[in-house]
Amino acid sequence: MKIDACFSPYLYPVYKGDDTIVVIIDVLRATSAICTAFEHGVEKIIPVATVEEARVYKEKGFLVGAERNGLPVDGFDFGNSPFHYMGDPIKGKTIVLTTTNGTQAIEAAKDAYKVVIGSFLNMDALCSWLLSENKNILLLCSGWKNKFNLEDAVFAGAVTDAISNTPDKYNLGDACLALKYLYKMAKENPNKFLSHSSHKERLAALNLKEDVRYCLTPNQTKVIPIYKEGALVRMYDV
Amino acid sequence: MKIDACFSPYLYPVYKGDDTIVVIIDVLRATSAICTAFEHGVEKIIPVATVEEARVYKEKGFLVGAERNGLPVDGFDFGNSPFHYMGDPIKGKTIVLTTTNGTQAIEAAKDAYKVVIGSFLNMDALCSWLLSENKNILLLCSGWKNKFNLEDAVFAGAVTDAISNTPDKYNLGDACLALKYLYKMAKENPNKFLSHSSHKERLAALNLKEDVRYCLTPNQTKVIPIYKEGALVRMYDV
Repeated sequence: MKIDACFSPYLYPVYKGDDTIVVIIDVLRATSAICTAFEHGVEKIIPVATVEEARVYKEKGFLVGAERNGLPVDGFDFGNSPFHYMGDPIKGKTIVLTTTNGTQAIEAAKDAYKVVIGSFLNMDALCSWLLSENKNILLLCSGWKNKFNLEDAVFAGAVTDAISNTPDKYNLGDACLALKYLYKMAKENPNKFLSHSSHKERLAALNLKEDVRYCLTPNQTKVIPIYKEGALVRMYDV
Repeated sequence: MKIDACFSPYLYPVYKGDDTIVVIIDVLRATSAICTAFEHGVEKIIPVATVEEARVYKEKGFLVGAERNGLPVDGFDFGNSPFHYMGDPIKGKTIVLTTTNGTQAIEAAKDAYKVVIGSFLNMDALCSWLLSENKNILLLCSGWKNKFNLEDAVFAGAVTDAISNTPDKYNLGDACLALKYLYKMAKENPNKFLSHSSHKERLAALNLKEDVRYCLTPNQTKVIPIYKEGALVRMYDV
């Protein structure tokens, strides 16, 4: 079996393959927010690519999260901070979500064999499940506007490292070879390692350091959101 | 000024920018072969994207190099081994070249402000020139069939490392931040570091270990090939 990583939704057509589990990664912050929402009891998340689609749902009465360039979009209920997806307002609800990067990656990969959501918050549960599936794995980093970003790469490296501790089970693509080395350098202190990354600087400028700290904290939940018939649901509901 | 890296010709539209020098990187083996050819006195190299275009030139009487999947294509004069581009047969000649990856990257970036050829073979000359230019830099890794590959990334990391030794001159994009760390781990012994890379394994299977060793040897030439009006020429001819 093979594990590889793709650094941009734009590049997904080059990497896509049959019988491959795609892990969507947008550590700061979409996939962290999605994991948080399911941990806090959301029923379903409908990812949409554009603000226009999100607005149609909003007009129909849905709860809608919308973020562009790190900021919540005016006229919607939430942005993509994980702290927006906690507590009673979301419990049992269906939420519609559009973000700059993460929901674009879901859109790109939606026809894959299985599409699941990964973040530091559900890392161990995700890796255990991936190992149990015995399938090819593609780590799809959402990046920033289709460019490589460091935090998604570091998380993809963490998954590669965990998965490839089972010797000889997976053949590592070149991107995963590189990421494994990258994670080696990052793992002592990911927050510090990422201090010069462009998106972390972007969020710090928006006063979102708490978001960053939370998103980089491993294993806050065991949920694995999975894409099924146009929406994300908890895996045990599939 | 900014230095960034793009890991696939397919992704170039996302990274392209005005006033940016694009360095084409295909360490194993196209850009190494091109540097070797100019060191050995070739006059001009016309890169073409397809074997069909190459065949048209061949029929007109040009010397033509053509490689696909690591092997020379039947009916042409050379493949893309650097050892094919040495000595009298190429001196003073115009050569047409098509390869699996490198010439695709040149094709993708051909309208950039300046397009130059980089490899370990001309590394120091290239870095000195880049520093003297005071422009944005994009390191365009050719990869393998539009996927990330390790050897191009390691070389892009080496260039990033050399360039960013001039403190605060360049703002590093996230890809270059990652590559700088990667190069830190690779630089003691790039040949060993690359031992599990997919393309190195591919070339080893084709009995091309000597090619790999030569392509990873820094500073065999001071030539910097540059793209000008549809062809690569030595920079001092521009």
